[in-house]
Amino acid sequence: MPRLAYLGPEGTFTEEALRLMEPGAERLPCATVGAALNAVRSGEADGAVVPLENSLEGGITTTLDEFAWGEPLLITAELLLPVRFSLLARPDTELVHIKRVYSHPAAITQCRGFVNRELPDAVVVSAPSTAAAAQEVSLPGSPYDAAIAARIAGEHYGLVEIAANIGDRTDTMTRFVRVSRPGALPEPTGSDRTTLVVFLADDHPGALLEMLTEFSVRGVNLTRIESRPTGDGIGRYFFHFDFEGHVADARVGEAISGLHRICGEVRFLGSYPRADGVSPQIKPATTDEAFAEATDWLAHIRQGNS
Amino acid sequence: MPRLAYLGPEGTFTEEALRLMEPGAERLPCATVGAALNAVRSGEADGAVVPLENSLEGGITTTLDEFAWGEPLLITAELLLPVRFSLLARPDTELVHIKRVYSHPAAITQCRGFVNRELPDAVVVSAPSTAAAAQEVSLPGSPYDAAIAARIAGEHYGLVEIAANIGDRTDTMTRFVRVSRPGALPEPTGSDRTTLVVFLADDHPGALLEMLTEFSVRGVNLTRIESRPTGDGIGRYFFHFDFEGHVADARVGEAISGLHRICGEVRFLGSYPRADGVSPQIKPATTDEAFAEATDWLAHIRQGNS
Amino acid sequence: MPRLAYLGPEGTFTEEALRLMEPGAERLPCATVGAALNAVRSGEADGAVVPLENSLEGGITTTLDEFAWGEPLLITAELLLPVRFSLLARPDTELVHIKRVYSHPAAITQCRGFVNRELPDAVVVSAPSTAAAAQEVSLPGSPYDAAIAARIAGEHYGLVEIAANIGDRTDTMTRFVRVSRPGALPEPTGSDRTTLVVFLADDHPGALLEMLTEFSVRGVNLTRIESRPTGDGIGRYFFHFDFEGHVADARVGEAISGLHRICGEVRFLGSYPRADGVSPQIKPATTDEAFAEATDWLAHIRQGNS
Amino acid sequence: MPRLAYLGPEGTFTEEALRLMEPGAERLPCATVGAALNAVRSGEADGAVVPLENSLEGGITTTLDEFAWGEPLLITAELLLPVRFSLLARPDTELVHIKRVYSHPAAITQCRGFVNRELPDAVVVSAPSTAAAAQEVSLPGSPYDAAIAARIAGEHYGLVEIAANIGDRTDTMTRFVRVSRPGALPEPTGSDRTTLVVFLADDHPGALLEMLTEFSVRGVNLTRIESRPTGDGIGRYFFHFDFEGHVADARVGEAISGLHRICGEVRFLGSYPRADGVSPQIKPATTDEAFAEATDWLAHIRQGNS
Repeated sequence: MPRLAYLGPEGTFTEEALRLMEPGAERLPCATVGAALNAVRSGEADGAVVPLENSLEGGITTTLDEFAWGEPLLITAELLLPVRFSLLARPDTELVHIKRVYSHPAAITQCRGFVNRELPDAVVVSAPSTAAAAQEVSLPGSPYDAAIAARIAGEHYGLVEIAANIGDRTDTMTRFVRVSRPGALPEPTGSDRTTLVVFLADDHPGALLEMLTEFSVRGVNLTRIESRPTGDGIGRYFFHFDFEGHVADARVGEAISGLHRICGEVRFLGSYPRADGVSPQIKPATTDEAFAEATDWLAHIRQGNS
Repeated sequence: MPRLAYLGPEGTFTEEALRLMEPGAERLPCATVGAALNAVRSGEADGAVVPLENSLEGGITTTLDEFAWGEPLLITAELLLPVRFSLLARPDTELVHIKRVYSHPAAITQCRGFVNRELPDAVVVSAPSTAAAAQEVSLPGSPYDAAIAARIAGEHYGLVEIAANIGDRTDTMTRFVRVSRPGALPEPTGSDRTTLVVFLADDHPGALLEMLTEFSVRGVNLTRIESRPTGDGIGRYFFHFDFEGHVADARVGEAISGLHRICGEVRFLGSYPRADGVSPQIKPATTDEAFAEATDWLAHIRQGNS
Repeated sequence: MPRLAYLGPEGTFTEEALRLMEPGAERLPCATVGAALNAVRSGEADGAVVPLENSLEGGITTTLDEFAWGEPLLITAELLLPVRFSLLARPDTELVHIKRVYSHPAAITQCRGFVNRELPDAVVVSAPSTAAAAQEVSLPGSPYDAAIAARIAGEHYGLVEIAANIGDRTDTMTRFVRVSRPGALPEPTGSDRTTLVVFLADDHPGALLEMLTEFSVRGVNLTRIESRPTGDGIGRYFFHFDFEGHVADARVGEAISGLHRICGEVRFLGSYPRADGVSPQIKPATTDEAFAEATDWLAHIRQGNS
Repeated sequence: MPRLAYLGPEGTFTEEALRLMEPGAERLPCATVGAALNAVRSGEADGAVVPLENSLEGGITTTLDEFAWGEPLLITAELLLPVRFSLLARPDTELVHIKRVYSHPAAITQCRGFVNRELPDAVVVSAPSTAAAAQEVSLPGSPYDAAIAARIAGEHYGLVEIAANIGDRTDTMTRFVRVSRPGALPEPTGSDRTTLVVFLADDHPGALLEMLTEFSVRGVNLTRIESRPTGDGIGRYFFHFDFEGHVADARVGEAISGLHRICGEVRFLGSYPRADGVSPQIKPATTDEAFAEATDWLAHIRQGNS
């Protein structure tokens, strides 16, 4: 039974993601993303589940920077989790009794419509996390009547769900990844994603265009690009790339070898099955067969054939 | 005397930036970036100063998203402000007396070396902002002995500077921008920057490469690219671009007209003098003169000359 | 009635092209392509019809070089003429009597199958042109029994057509163009072609790629590219480009203005209706409407709107 | 002693090239380029020397098309030969006696200045080749007083050189290549050239740009591009490419493998030392070492390292 660290406390959306990804795992809640990843690095955990990006908030910068700068880890799986907020209260609370609501600011923002409509007179107070809000509300003498949090938090802290799915948007998603220490990669499935961090050798005009051309020439489609500061002053960035395909694919291998040649440093963060199950349209010229055939042809002509 | 809103409370780095950019302005502190920008939109303020990016933390996503989605505003100036943290305390406090330190988590992180070295036994507690930490420390009965904040916060709240420049890195910078309601643009200076927000028409493979090619073909160099989620699910992004030059420059005008043609929406956020004073190397083929000459030539041949 | 020079003598395929293009014109046969074009330059003729390329032989280098180096002229029309060879002889000649055949070497090559099959014992002799061969055969005392030439040559010189369409390939075509002195251009028809000659400013690596990018970024498709030596040593070339669209089209105008900026010299050779009547697929982003809309938008934001 | 076919008759510039390239070879003059190449294909000759391009006339289309369509051969060497015309006459002829000059039309064109200046009253007549002109003039009863030809033709046919280097331009060059049957390639020298023929898979817009991008992405610089008709109608072309580097170079191998994948057919015509001795500037990212290092890195990360 693997032991997986995650961004705690108990009752977070990250725990929910972890339980969906690895139902049987032992769970180790950690205070921060960095702590969860360090638990993997140190061997205390076999892996970790951390959020990578959210469809409203964008990239989780702590995660992005940990992947770029910390001791290397490998992403081995991803999950897209719908973000569904519940209004949670102590048993026997009714909606009309709720005067003080406690939650994380992002959750408060995303549930503004529900609160204005159903709890127009309630005072809403910021909490450090949605799970912490639920935990607080579960205490008998809590000054708060309800928390906005994941349903799973209610289960943890003995709260009842007064209302479900109360977010203003119903399509908000968070993308979580499972990471391990470097080791065997997941097998290619035909619907894979690869993630890299790339540092420029020198920040000349056109450097980004050159990087994208390395991908496009081999028919590799980007699915995400994110710039992050290197820390060395405004105007100096490095890049996170997600793209279609597995590092075992010939076209991916050649593309990232090209990046490796032209860039200062390329850090491979893993190839893993896509959560959305989408398979890329691979052009005939960039299939593994086409690459193998071209390799044979090149060997043939290097022998002096034509 | 213009009235400028800013991200308050008094004593923030944003206030420091505002005072450097417009020493004589009346200052209107606001609780959030959104509130400061809304004060401009409503006419309550003539302009606002807000942070756009930090060399350690990256883009300030609230600002980026406000610029993209809110009622349009124009950036008219930028400032690069070194982030210098001071250890501030009530008068007569000495370093050896400091047992409890209060500050914003980012500041705590960035001053970890100083605290470990000089205050190894101090308890460090998180505050909502550095300015709020200074304000709290200034209260006679405060449980905290010192705040880590901008020097300007000490001046506001009557604290003395026990130690200056205590950040682990001395080169951290924040980039601030001054915004106004749409209106006359700053004149080109030869050292200008332009900022755009770009939404894709359809998110086909290669769309980003096409956008970058619109710039490169006209010799316009990007200085920043940042992707942000559109909110419509993981995998859907829009882009912030900063690049060299002024919208009045012919090469910039043609490049962004090209973007406008191929993209879903291009929002112009302003052309303004660069804070670093760097002038781009403009290739002879992309000067205003070269464009004017080509326009004349085209008119000439369209008349049937050759 | 216009007076048109052409590559003579009477009875050439060029004359056939001229008669199809301008049935009512007065015809002025000239000894060389250069002489025909000079007749236009001097005012002796109102225009000229000359061959530009052949689907088997390739570009007619004399024409290409005359267009590049000579006093400027404009192409105003093009024609694709199927090259159909006839076996022509004096009246009363029968196939079995033909022992000596006279024709231009290219025609001999292209009719090799017919000659081997039908005239296996005939001697075949090279002539300076197919029309000259027909003229020679028409003389009563000619040592030749038949000529391979255009049917029109038979009509001119009183020969009968023993066999028609005797080429090995039935799809050989020559492309002819009609040229005039610089003046009003043909109106755009929606199915137009434009021809340019481009000299590089400096022959740096990637120069050709940059030129093609100027076209592709504006959605302009090339239909022909031909390199020719500048004369200044091996390895120095200039280029002929044919591409879809009319110089009056916005996308064409911007593309060739871009070429004009980055190249040493761009010579406009004309915009004229395509002989094949094909209309290009214009992407929505590169229609005249899209360009006009982008121009309006640029003017709008340059006023400080966003 | 190898036996080399060449474009005859004796006394051509091609013979001069052959003697410079392989002084000790047995020489087999042939009537046409095709015949010379067929002599190699059949084994009658060990190799052949043929002209490929001329700095005034451009590509020698017969050679280009033979290389593209005929049984494959390999280019193993090249030579740049200055084209120096001599005025050749029978012994005891003086300049003032020359009334009738015989030569190939291209030579006549290129020596027009000399003839007009020194032989203003001479009649100039066209010959099938410069060597044939010299041969004719050498006959005692010849109606011609002098030939314009290569000096070597004078040596062959017993003529004296009345004037040397009489071309209007002194920098005209012809590029000759030595070809062999497929077999071992010349070793890379660091100053090599590679020649390919490329047929498109389908003639879509942008196909040429894609081909050039395959080169540019691997830092391979083109030195010549020439389009030739496929024969299947106007508007259908294939391409000859010359570029820097040897097929044994990693960057060249990857570039042409890319071409092979995206094109209909790529025919390798050889890698051989450059006649001009120029060594390309290879960017650090595209050296063999950089490719080898990237290959190692890829193998490493495919094992799950990062």
